Amino acid sequence: MIPFNKPYLTGKETHYMYDAVYIGKLSGNGKFTKKCQEFFEDKYGFKKCLLTTSCTDALEMAAILANIQPGDEVIMPSYTFVSTSNAFVLRGAKIIFADSRKDHPGIDEDSIENLITTKTKAIVPVHYAGVACDMEKIMNIANKYDLLVIEDAAQAIDSYFTFSDGTKKALGSIGHLSAFSFHETKNIISGEGGLLAINDTRFSARAEIIWEKGTNRSAFFRGEVDKYGWVDIGSSFLPSETIAAFLWAQLENIEDIQKKRISIWEQYYDGLKEWAIANDLRIPCVPDFATNNAHMFYLVCKDVEQRTELINRLKRNNISAVFHYLSLHKSPFYNDKHDGRELLISDYYSNCLVRLPMYYELTNQDVECIIDSIVNG
Amino acid sequence: MIPFNKPYLTGKETHYMYDAVYIGKLSGNGKFTKKCQEFFEDKYGFKKCLLTTSCTDALEMAAILANIQPGDEVIMPSYTFVSTSNAFVLRGAKIIFADSRKDHPGIDEDSIENLITTKTKAIVPVHYAGVACDMEKIMNIANKYDLLVIEDAAQAIDSYFTFSDGTKKALGSIGHLSAFSFHETKNIISGEGGLLAINDTRFSARAEIIWEKGTNRSAFFRGEVDKYGWVDIGSSFLPSETIAAFLWAQLENIEDIQKKRISIWEQYYDGLKEWAIANDLRIPCVPDFATNNAHMFYLVCKDVEQRTELINRLKRNNISAVFHYLSLHKSPFYNDKHDGRELLISDYYSNCLVRLPMYYELTNQDVECIIDSIVNG
Repeated sequence: MIPFNKPYLTGKETHYMYDAVYIGKLSGNGKFTKKCQEFFEDKYGFKKCLLTTSCTDALEMAAILANIQPGDEVIMPSYTFVSTSNAFVLRGAKIIFADSRKDHPGIDEDSIENLITTKTKAIVPVHYAGVACDMEKIMNIANKYDLLVIEDAAQAIDSYFTFSDGTKKALGSIGHLSAFSFHETKNIISGEGGLLAINDTRFSARAEIIWEKGTNRSAFFRGEVDKYGWVDIGSSFLPSETIAAFLWAQLENIEDIQKKRISIWEQYYDGLKEWAIANDLRIPCVPDFATNNAHMFYLVCKDVEQRTELINRLKRNNISAVFHYLSLHKSPFYNDKHDGRELLISDYYSNCLVRLPMYYELTNQDVECIIDSIVNG
Repeated sequence: MIPFNKPYLTGKETHYMYDAVYIGKLSGNGKFTKKCQEFFEDKYGFKKCLLTTSCTDALEMAAILANIQPGDEVIMPSYTFVSTSNAFVLRGAKIIFADSRKDHPGIDEDSIENLITTKTKAIVPVHYAGVACDMEKIMNIANKYDLLVIEDAAQAIDSYFTFSDGTKKALGSIGHLSAFSFHETKNIISGEGGLLAINDTRFSARAEIIWEKGTNRSAFFRGEVDKYGWVDIGSSFLPSETIAAFLWAQLENIEDIQKKRISIWEQYYDGLKEWAIANDLRIPCVPDFATNNAHMFYLVCKDVEQRTELINRLKRNNISAVFHYLSLHKSPFYNDKHDGRELLISDYYSNCLVRLPMYYELTNQDVECIIDSIVNG
């Protein structure tokens, strides 16, 4: 049986968790939390980082920081995970769903400008499969209309965008705020877990307060105020130290993890490219401005029947392949709140995209076997 | 140096975390999550339990389940932690702060009825120091006005309330919904962590959805629906399995932990009772309807000067004693939103209450030494 996902352990996770336990500081914001936050700031150029209990929670922090008020509009792709939208709906936002690109499930950047109204507050691009949206186009639109950009970088650790002047920046470092996930299905994991990256330093002080349940506790511990109290809304967004300790073991090995995943991805790509073209399926497209962090290898079938047949065929060979993301504008929750626009490309990916097994411990033989099951049945 | 708190480890925490890691199911809702939830349901009679990443998050789930809308009013004591109120403020509630009892920092039950208006949606009693509020009185008021009762049982694990007919029920099992904390300062810990207990089963199905990011994923895995999608608001409230594994080690030892804490508490009580009376301080009061879970041993000084002197005296003897809870109605955040009523008993506890060190590994000699420092300076 080849599962769809298998969390990879570098071997040091339990060791560092043991450390965290015996240091005796078990709640959040201890030694390992700080080490992880500094790692991200140094490696990817995020201005300030705060670990969270999930990417969902990081998005919720972003929605609070964006000061979303009831009736404000937020533009995002319909082809995404529920948390992208829920975080803003919880603050009262109306979600304006955009369609996906034809060549890639990411937001159709050219459709954004038409969706902007006087109520628009933020654009939330989702870097699907860790592949960048056109951040230059999106930042230009945001600047023109004075909107915030919140990158949903749940899948996008260690991936980059190149601007037309050649500048290359890590995903998550371009928008005003960004959210990452360390859920067990991601490249770098901590079980459940996430990160808020703050690139616009106007938000730094308030982010710290919201993270600490709406109190100025962090400023108090730095000696900046003489007592701390309730100064804002907020929640308990910080994870236990044991979670940060687990994450630290992963970060120490990020280069090895990425190298291995990319080699698996390339084996899929080389093995399936010709067959896909011959059978009317599409393989992943990585635009010139993007890099590939090998979060995911997917195929886009020509229709839902072909996809069902493919998933069943793999299942018969004990291989688990999955689809995901029902277009959110058609969901039971948002169907009657959506403005009725058809989002056909989003529906197309909902019906036709299938994800193949992708994890560190997949062997060359496993990938060969999966390719063979696809190509030869 | 005697610290204020020291997280106690039973010895099996890292063992079970190791288990959770090597089972390979690291995200939420795995084996250890289910074991913990069943433990609480069986031992305390909660109808349905869901682990959360914090008590704050459990309160936020309760606020969503209570369907709090902007402008709804929620009654709670002013003398509490910010999360009690933030959870409801995040949903748009107006907080109506009540004063505390004269004999105990818990909500003054007799003041509640006068605070009820047509906009009142819920009452949130906080079982301060793990000592019950008069839940019979509160449930009667709630029933009379058709209000929800959400117990903030953050400190109240393994504590009970006895009704006038002799029925004894665990705190957290009486209100419609209840929230517990497993923060490292509590009797039973997991670093950061919490629990939502659902006693009114009308809320069970929706609770599961809100817990799973607003999706009907749980029903899908039980085979009740054939695909899952976005059906409601929600968040990622579930903790990693490693957190649940840590908690499980604590729960296996709950009787031992409680026995030890109660013996420390009694040593404080016996050693300080006479001195406190002679010096115009008060020692904790446990009403007849309540039990003592030994979460906290505190003294209430006659004024803030006496408290400052006491804290400084202990500090000179290398003993850390702390105060907490600035009345929330006077906080920078809520001061201008409060209706102006004075809450003098709440202010009194804010100014005069001091918490003494309380943790499993405090020895008889430590407690003797603390008592001696208080009594003899």
